Amino acid sequence: MVKPKRLLSLLLRLIAFGATLAAVIIMATSHEKGSFFALSYEAKYSDTPAFKYFVIANAIVTVYGFLALFIPSESPLRRLVLALDLVFTMLLISSISAALAVAQVGKKGNSSAGWLPVCGQVAKYCNQVTGALVAGFIAIITYIILLLYTIYTFLNSLLGKTPCRLSSPGI
Amino acid sequence: MVKPKRLLSLLLRLIAFGATLAAVIIMATSHEKGSFFALSYEAKYSDTPAFKYFVIANAIVTVYGFLALFIPSESPLRRLVLALDLVFTMLLISSISAALAVAQVGKKGNSSAGWLPVCGQVAKYCNQVTGALVAGFIAIITYIILLLYTIYTFLNSLLGKTPCRLSSPGI
Repeated sequence: MVKPKRLLSLLLRLIAFGATLAAVIIMATSHEKGSFFALSYEAKYSDTPAFKYFVIANAIVTVYGFLALFIPSESPLRRLVLALDLVFTMLLISSISAALAVAQVGKKGNSSAGWLPVCGQVAKYCNQVTGALVAGFIAIITYIILLLYTIYTFLNSLLGKTPCRLSSPGI
Repeated sequence: MVKPKRLLSLLLRLIAFGATLAAVIIMATSHEKGSFFALSYEAKYSDTPAFKYFVIANAIVTVYGFLALFIPSESPLRRLVLALDLVFTMLLISSISAALAVAQVGKKGNSSAGWLPVCGQVAKYCNQVTGALVAGFIAIITYIILLLYTIYTFLNSLLGKTPCRLSSPGI
């Protein structure tokens, strides 16, 4: 039978996996044809390097999240998982920050640089990007909870597995 | 006398403190008057929310970095420093990612959104922003090294301070 602690960890990993997968799919399928005065153009994520970075980062973490589901809790690989959780959380934070910064310019524009907001012309595209960012945000929150939980159990097991513990049961 | 390990940690903290301080000063003083056709404008960091976020994040970490210099290595606050190092490294990564994403648009533009590159008109401003980003990058690298070093010494002290270690010296 699966222990409750392991079940919680599995549940968090499933949520994180689902969220990063959703972020990839929503962002990668976001495109809309818009027009600006006489100019017609197609807005798609791949035209913006920050959004491409977001998709690639979330895709990498999705693959990792899927593989991490199958590592048993007693495996020596758990220590590696702690380190990788940390690295991939940083990757997710970096990618969502970059995507958010460009999305903010897309929504509000930047008058001093002469960049006009585009969300008025391609509202559906903007909503889809917002959806992807929300999914990415859920993934980050889940990974931070997972990270805190893994550190907690890791420290506990480290303190519990001292080599002399069995030799001095009275202490 | 200060121990070599403590000296290394202090040196890394000094570099990190200097780098975040430099990032704040360089970005906060970046402004240049440019003209685009007949239009004259002033480019400054405070017009771009991502750059403001970069300055605020680096300023917060500068204050923290200064305070962390004075925490003795035996203090119980060291555990808090480990947690805060982690949180502030994530903050720095987030802020530099956002700033980089917008700086990239400033340098290359985004043709599909109709955003023209501005670095041709305000080259000095762009160079200064690049300098701030480089300083921010050095700060992040230093904090990651510090983090790895703190985790290493923290785990070592944790394993060394097990209550039964002295009671069974033969093992």
